[in-house]
Formats: sequence, structure tokens, C-alpha cells
Amino acid sequence: MNPTDARLQALLQPITEPMAAMRAVLAEELATDAPAVADMTDHISRFQGKQLRAALVLLVGQATQNDDRELSTVAAIVELIHLATLVHDDVLDGAEVRRRVACVNERWDNQVAVLLGDWLYSRAFHRSTTLKSRLASQLLAKTTQKICVGEIEQAGGRYDFEMAETRYENIAGAKTAALYSAACELGARYPGDSGFGTSMASFGWELGLAFQIIDDVLDLTGTEAEVGKSVGNDVEDGKVTLAVLKTYAMADGDTRARIRDVYTLPDLEDRVARLREVCDLGPGLDYARARASALLTSAQGRLSALGASPAREALETLMTFLQERRF
Amino acid sequence: MNPTDARLQALLQPITEPMAAMRAVLAEELATDAPAVADMTDHISRFQGKQLRAALVLLVGQATQNDDRELSTVAAIVELIHLATLVHDDVLDGAEVRRRVACVNERWDNQVAVLLGDWLYSRAFHRSTTLKSRLASQLLAKTTQKICVGEIEQAGGRYDFEMAETRYENIAGAKTAALYSAACELGARYPGDSGFGTSMASFGWELGLAFQIIDDVLDLTGTEAEVGKSVGNDVEDGKVTLAVLKTYAMADGDTRARIRDVYTLPDLEDRVARLREVCDLGPGLDYARARASALLTSAQGRLSALGASPAREALETLMTFLQERRF
Repeated sequence: MNPTDARLQALLQPITEPMAAMRAVLAEELATDAPAVADMTDHISRFQGKQLRAALVLLVGQATQNDDRELSTVAAIVELIHLATLVHDDVLDGAEVRRRVACVNERWDNQVAVLLGDWLYSRAFHRSTTLKSRLASQLLAKTTQKICVGEIEQAGGRYDFEMAETRYENIAGAKTAALYSAACELGARYPGDSGFGTSMASFGWELGLAFQIIDDVLDLTGTEAEVGKSVGNDVEDGKVTLAVLKTYAMADGDTRARIRDVYTLPDLEDRVARLREVCDLGPGLDYARARASALLTSAQGRLSALGASPAREALETLMTFLQERRF
Repeated sequence: MNPTDARLQALLQPITEPMAAMRAVLAEELATDAPAVADMTDHISRFQGKQLRAALVLLVGQATQNDDRELSTVAAIVELIHLATLVHDDVLDGAEVRRRVACVNERWDNQVAVLLGDWLYSRAFHRSTTLKSRLASQLLAKTTQKICVGEIEQAGGRYDFEMAETRYENIAGAKTAALYSAACELGARYPGDSGFGTSMASFGWELGLAFQIIDDVLDLTGTEAEVGKSVGNDVEDGKVTLAVLKTYAMADGDTRARIRDVYTLPDLEDRVARLREVCDLGPGLDYARARASALLTSAQGRLSALGASPAREALETLMTFLQERRF
């Protein structure tokens, strides 16, 4: 176990039992009689990653004294929706490596990846309709809408070097923060309402947005080995992320033209390296890191309203963990 | 208006008002503040077709004396799910023409078609969670699963010339009949239960399966002008449909090899014409038509248990209409 994994394990310690229950539900939902589907779900279960969204449901649940027995199922449903978006993301980005396992659309074709994602969504929605409260169904269907709109807006905003920062944050937020926010909100208030629903929704949004901003930074600065997935995709795909937006905004006309060329000229290799040649990304990267840091500080503040608990401590450790991830 | 459209209009006469209410809900659900999405939904609303699935919900509803006020909304949700499957189908099949409007993934790229389909699904599911009964949510989420499994099995069964007929029917059924069946079941029993739920579910299944079998026949025998969408796709995509399965089963070894060649040799043009050269499709086509006819007769029998009503008459006319479509 590498040090990062060991620290994550420690973080999940207060929710060992509900996470096990969550995994049991997830396994149930990934089980199928259809052999053609089973072959793929086996594969998917290998790249499930850290199950951070499920952990957020359960950690926030515990930190807000929500001991509803259905919370593990809610967490599994959130994780299923995340899996569906990952599978469809593979269709979208043509990313070549995700967590060092060949992604679904390389092993099978795009057609089947679309269907598998649809199947995962419908499993998730169906399970949510069997819960005593409609809150999970409703919030997660709304969240899925937000995610789609964000991704569609992102596709429409490619090569837009003058995008407003708020628009960048809306798009990055819809992509990642929306599901984090729903996870934390459900943890705090499923099945009904609690005083912490709104603040935990904001906590999750800030956490998720910070995570996405850092992810975008790492796509510019990291190596595949460090990040655990291919990097440089954003420049390749025409996605202008916060550090580049800021760099572009501060650049003179010549530099701007060169930045645009790096994104748009056909058949360029290693566009990130070329980007670093034509401009100084440093201040833009610092700006993005500072923004992520501010979001994490704000999120941290929201935790202070909760009583002390091992789960709250784990959430605080998670924040530190994310703060460090950016370097 | 061509004669076909005029006859369809007459068919919908008993449900003029609920269809208008259905369309209003559909318009609400296709409305969005996101400009990037709005551009696409405008386009989608132009290829909505005959809204046959929504009409089935409402005709069966009326024929079974179900006057629940939410039925128009249920019908709109069924139609939204159908639209989502169409949009994802365009990603899948690469079909070039659907109802003579360029399909979504030609005007936008595959990425956005996947997201738009996901958005439509999540709109549909969200709307279903606002209804008084969970029946629509649950049945439609289950149905979406079935559709996906059927399509995945179909992808896995390509170039399988020895597929059992029951497997062909399961796949064809999952693809089309599942949603017809859900539409008819919901029409009969939403929001709760009625004596007609099971028989109308079977009615819808048989109707939908007959429709799909005829569709597969037309893909082999029709022209683009007649059918209103591109034809010959199944052979091109390696889908071995009922008429070919039967032809293959009855053929000698040499003919079988030639049939396989027509499907699999690279860069062949007009594979359907070549298929007709290497074998006599006639008996296989007749067999498929007879099977569709038997299904329609069985479905028709199920209607006889219902009291006389304009809606039941319309459903009977629809059957005749489908019977004729096959020639």
C-alpha cells in the first residue's frame, strides 16, 4: 500500500461498516443475469477508484449525526451514478488511460460504452425509487441534469479563451462539484430535512470545485505516473481551464496568438510542453491554486458548525489531503 | 397531409385533449435555460415523429377507463425516454438519416449526443419522481435497463447466424417492445393496479415486437423513400435479423458461406442487394411476416376483453395499420 492509499484508508476508518454495506449494495446493483453485461461490469468494478463520493455521503452523515439506515444504499446509488458518468466520459474524452486500466471504450466500442452507462444510470435510478424517501431520486436526477448541462456547455465553450471565470467555475462545478454537493447534502439530510442540508451542500460544492480546479492544474503540470491517468487532455481537447484563462487574460496580443496556435494548429505533438514554451504559465497556475485553496478554506469553515466527531476529523483530514495534492 | 398521416390523425382523435396536455408537458421538459442545450432540443422537437408511445399510454388508458389526471404526464415521460433512446441510437448506429432530418450526431459530435441523451433521461426520471405514484418511475427505470441489456446483447450477437429465434425475439423485444409494453401497462394501471395491467403489458409487448420484426423486414426490402429512414443498416452492422436467420437455417453449406461473406467481407457496397443475389430471401421474409402477423392477432385478442370504446377501436385500427405496413 502506498502512503496515499494508507492515509485514505485511515480517513475511512470511522465509516468502515457503512462502507462495507455500501459495497454490498453496489455489488448487488452491478450483478446481472445478462452475460454480455456481466463481462463489462466485472471490468468496471476494477476501476472503481477511491469511492470518495460514497464516503462523503457516509462521513457527512456521521458528522451530522444522521444515522438513517438507508444511507449506505444512498451512497451506493451516488457511486453508481459516478460510474455511469465515468463510462460516458470515456466515450467523450477518448482518454486513453484511466487509473491505469484500459477504459471501457477501448475494450469495447463506443456503442456499448454508451449503453453500459445508460444501464448504470437506470440501475441507480431504479434503486433510488425503492427507498422510503423520494429525496435521493429527485436530488440525483436534478444533479445528473446539471452534470449533462455542464458538459454540454463545456463542449460548446471549447477554444473560448475569453470565457468569464464564473462561467469556467459553473462548468467545472457542474462537472464535479454537483455530485459532491448532492452526496454531502444527502448525507446531511436524507431522508428528510436537517439544519445542515444547505451548509453541507455548499461544503460539497466547494470541495468538488476545488478538486476539479486542482485536477485541471494537474492536467497541465502533472505526469501520467503522478496523476494516475493521462494528462494534457484539456489542451488537446480545446478546454481552456482556469490557469490558461488567467494567463491569456494577462498576456499581450502576440502571446495570445501563440497560445491560440498551440491549441488549434493541427497535428501538434505535446501541446502542453509547447504551451509552456510560448508563455509563462506560473502566475496563472498560482492563481488557480490560490482559488482552490480559498474554496477549501471556505469549506473547512462550514465544518466548524458541526460537533466534534471522528467523521468530522476525517473530513478535515480530507481537506488537508486535497490542499497538498495541488503541489 | 399524405394518406398515412391522415389515418394516424384519425386514430388519435379520441385522445385529442390528453395528447395536447402531453405535448405541453413535453415542451416544458424540453425547455431549458442553458443556451447550448436549447439549440439541440429545438432540433430534437423537429424529429419527434408520431409520438406513438405516448398515444399508446393514452389510448390504452381510455380503453380501460383509466381517467387518472396524471396520465398525460406519464405519456410525456414515456416519450422523453423514447427520445433519449433515439438520440443514443444515433450514436450507436451511425444511421445517416432518421425521418429525413439529419440526426443529432451529425450536426453535433458524438460526445454531445451522449450528453443530450443523458440529459433527456434525467429529465424524464426527474419528472417521474414528482408524480403521486412511484409506479412510473419504477417501471420505466426497469424498462430502460431492459432496453440497454437488449442493445448490449444485440451488439454481442452481431454476425451470429445461428442465434436461436427466442434470443432474436428477446433482443428485438427489449429494443422496441419493452417500452411499448411499459406504455400500455402504465396506461392500464397507473397509478396503482387494475385488472388490465398484465394483459395490456402483453398487448404492448406483442405489438412492439411485431413492429420491430416488420421494421427488420423493411430494412431488407424497403427503400429510404418508403421507410422514411436509411435502410440496409442491419446487414451493414452485422445484425442478423429473423428473415436472414431463417434463410440461413434453411440454406446449404455453400449458400451459408456466401451469406456470411456478404455480411463480413470488407468494403462491400450495397450488401442487401448482394444478399439477394446469393440466396432467396423470400421464404425467410414470409416467415418473419407471418410471425409478426401472429403476434398482432394475439394482441388483437387481448383487446376483446375490453369494453367497446372509440379508443379501443383506434387501437384495432392501429393493428390493421401495422398489418398493412408489412407489405
